[in-house]
Amino acid sequence: MVSNRIVPQVLEDCGKKGVKVVSIFTSGFSEIQTEEGRALEAKVKEIAERSGIILVGPNCMGLYNSKIGLNFIGVDLALHEGKVAFISQSGGLAQNSTVTGRRYGVEILKAVSCGNSALYEPADFLDFFKNDEEINLIAMYVEGAKDGRKLLKSLQEANRKKPVIIWKAGKTAEGTRTVGTHTGVLTGAANVWEAAMKQTKVAKADNFLDLIYTTMTFALESLKGYNLGILSISGGQSVEYTDTLSTTGLGIPILSDETQREIESILPEVGVNTRNPLDMAASWSQPGMVRKVLKAISKDRDINGIVVSIDAHREKTIELIEKDRIKKLTNAIIEARNSTNTPVFVILTATAVEEIALNIFDDFIKAKIPVYRDPAMAANCIRKLADYWTWRESQN
Amino acid sequence: MVSNRIVPQVLEDCGKKGVKVVSIFTSGFSEIQTEEGRALEAKVKEIAERSGIILVGPNCMGLYNSKIGLNFIGVDLALHEGKVAFISQSGGLAQNSTVTGRRYGVEILKAVSCGNSALYEPADFLDFFKNDEEINLIAMYVEGAKDGRKLLKSLQEANRKKPVIIWKAGKTAEGTRTVGTHTGVLTGAANVWEAAMKQTKVAKADNFLDLIYTTMTFALESLKGYNLGILSISGGQSVEYTDTLSTTGLGIPILSDETQREIESILPEVGVNTRNPLDMAASWSQPGMVRKVLKAISKDRDINGIVVSIDAHREKTIELIEKDRIKKLTNAIIEARNSTNTPVFVILTATAVEEIALNIFDDFIKAKIPVYRDPAMAANCIRKLADYWTWRESQN
Repeated sequence: MVSNRIVPQVLEDCGKKGVKVVSIFTSGFSEIQTEEGRALEAKVKEIAERSGIILVGPNCMGLYNSKIGLNFIGVDLALHEGKVAFISQSGGLAQNSTVTGRRYGVEILKAVSCGNSALYEPADFLDFFKNDEEINLIAMYVEGAKDGRKLLKSLQEANRKKPVIIWKAGKTAEGTRTVGTHTGVLTGAANVWEAAMKQTKVAKADNFLDLIYTTMTFALESLKGYNLGILSISGGQSVEYTDTLSTTGLGIPILSDETQREIESILPEVGVNTRNPLDMAASWSQPGMVRKVLKAISKDRDINGIVVSIDAHREKTIELIEKDRIKKLTNAIIEARNSTNTPVFVILTATAVEEIALNIFDDFIKAKIPVYRDPAMAANCIRKLADYWTWRESQN
Repeated sequence: MVSNRIVPQVLEDCGKKGVKVVSIFTSGFSEIQTEEGRALEAKVKEIAERSGIILVGPNCMGLYNSKIGLNFIGVDLALHEGKVAFISQSGGLAQNSTVTGRRYGVEILKAVSCGNSALYEPADFLDFFKNDEEINLIAMYVEGAKDGRKLLKSLQEANRKKPVIIWKAGKTAEGTRTVGTHTGVLTGAANVWEAAMKQTKVAKADNFLDLIYTTMTFALESLKGYNLGILSISGGQSVEYTDTLSTTGLGIPILSDETQREIESILPEVGVNTRNPLDMAASWSQPGMVRKVLKAISKDRDINGIVVSIDAHREKTIELIEKDRIKKLTNAIIEARNSTNTPVFVILTATAVEEIALNIFDDFIKAKIPVYRDPAMAANCIRKLADYWTWRESQN
C-alpha cells in the first residue's frame, strides 16, 4: 500500500509496464473535499486516460469475480453458480453483500466497488453487465451520480434486458449530509431519484436488508401476474397474510370451482374453507396433503404464485409426535414447487424457537425457494417481482 | 369437552353450583354464521347474565395468568416479572404471543382470548387492565368491535394511563372476507379504525411481527423526544440508518460542541467525524471506547435516545484477534445504558453468521435493551415510542 501522494507515480509506472486494469484502494482524493484531494484525483484520471488504463476507484475495494478467484480484501471467496452482479459505491457494502448474500440465496458472481469513480462510474459498469451473458440480475448501491442523464439511459437499457435493483442512499437531508463525507459524490434530490427509478421501472430497495431480500426474490423467482394463493395451518395467519399482501396491491382471488373441488377431494375434513386463503388446520400435519394441496392450487389458472406460511413453534410441537416432521414438511413443499412452474414463497413467522426457524430458512434457500421472516417484507418483494415481470411481458 | 349443543345445560349447572367465571372453548356459535349458531350464543349469554357468571368466549382460549398458574392449552407457563397484558380476539394468536413474546422481551403476565365475546368484548377487558396495577402496558389483537363507541372511549381512557398497542386485522376487503369466518365479528371500515387509532393516540401495529416488536419497544423503554444519536463502526451503515430513521420523522441532530470535544478526547484518531452519526471506525474494536463514547452522547442535552448498529460478521472477524470480543462489546453497551437515563436501541444488521446474531439478540433482550433485525422496523417502533411519550408529557 502507498500513500495518496505516491499514487500518480505508481500509475505512471503501471502505464509504462503496459498494465491494463488498475484498482486504487488508497483514499485521500476527492472524498476528503479539499483542493489537494480533488487535484490529485484529476491527475490520476489524466494519467489513466493517457496510458489507456482501465481505472477503478480511487478509494474503493475494486473488483470481485468468484469464478476467476479475483477477491476483495477480507472476504472468503465463494464457489457457486450465481449469476448476480453487484455494483457499489461503498467498498464495505460490496464486501458485505458478497458475504451476507450467500446466506440469503444471493450468489454474487461479479462485483465492483467503484468508490470515487474518477474514470468509470456505476452507469459504465451497468453498461458492461447489461451485455454480460454470465449475469442475469444486477443489484446496485448508489450514493449519487456524476452524470444523471447517462445513468438514467443505462438503467433503462439494462432493465429491459435483465432486472436491475437499486438501493439509493442519502435520500433525506440528514442522510445526504452523511454521504458527502463518504465517497464525495453528489447525491441529488431524492424526488429526482424516485422519479428516475419509477420511469425506468427498476426495482427499488430502501436499505441493506431490503436490498438483500429483493435481490434474493429476483435471483430465485420470476412472477408473471399479481394473484396469489395462501396456504397455512392457521386462520389467524390467513387473515394476517391476506391483509399484508393485499395492502401492497397483490390479489388473493377466490379459487376456481375446479380447484376447490380438487382440494375438497384431498382434505378429509368437512367444512374446510377451500376458497383462498386456505387454512389447512389439522390436515397440515400430513406433509403428503400439503404437497397435494399445493399442487392443486398451482394448477389454478388464476393463480400466479403461492405463499406458504410456517410457524416453527407449531412444527416443533408436531415433531414431538412425529419424528423428522420438519424435514418432511420442507421436502413436501420443495417437491410441490419443483413439479410445477408456479413460484412458491415461504414466510416463517416470528417464533420462540428462532434456532429452528433458522434451519428451515437455510433449507429453503438451499432449495432456491425465497423465504422471509417478515410478511411485510415478503409482500413488498413479491409485488416488485410481479411489477417487473408483468412489465417485461408487456414489452414484447 | 362438550359439543356446542350441550353448552347451555353445562352453563345452567355452573350457575346452580355458584361458579363465578366460565370460559367456553367450544366453537359452533355465532362464528359459523347460521341461525342455529346465533341462537345458541344468545341463549348462552342469557344464562350467564341471569346466573351472574362472568363469561369469556365462547369459541376462545380463555384466560392466562402466569403468576397464578392459569394457562392456555398447549402453552408452557412462564416465570417472569412481566407487566404486559394481552387482549386477543384470536385464541391461536393469544397462545402465540405469550410464547413468542418471551424470546422478544415481551413478558405477558395476563392475557385473555375473548373469541365471540358473547358477554364481554375487548373494550371490557381494556377497562379492567386500565386499573390493574400489575399491568403497565396493554397489547391487543382485534378483528372488530360490536360497539365501536365503547371501544373508542375505553381506548382513550386506557391509553392516558398506560400505553395501548393495537393490531387491527381485516383491514383490506380480502382480509375482511377472511375474518368473517374466523370469529364472526364485524370488522368495520378500515378508515374508521385508522381514524379511531389516530384520535386516541394508541400505537398501531400492522402484523404479528410488528406487534411483537412494538410491544417489545414499549415494554423495555420510554422515549421523551425525537432526537437520536447513531453509533456504528461503518460509514455506510451511518448513512443507511440516518436515512431510515429520518424517513419516519426522527431527528439526527449535530451533537453539541461540548459533546464533540469530549468524544475527540476519547478517540485517538485524527479527523473522526464527531458530529452525528458517529462512525467509530477502528476505535470500535475497543469496547472501553465504545462505552465512553456512548456515555458522552447520552449526556448531550439535544439527544433523547441512541441507536447502536452491530454487524455480527465484523464482530466475528474481530473475535479472531480478540477472545470474547462479542461479550465484551455487548457488556460495554449494556453498562453504558445502565449508567444513564438515555434509552439505547440496537440494530443487528443482516449477516452471513445468523447464529451469532441470534446470540447477540438474546443477550440484549436479557439486558432489557430493545434490539431489531431490520432498521425500518426499528425506525417505526422508535417513532411510535417517541410519539406516545411526548404526547403523554404534553398531557400533564
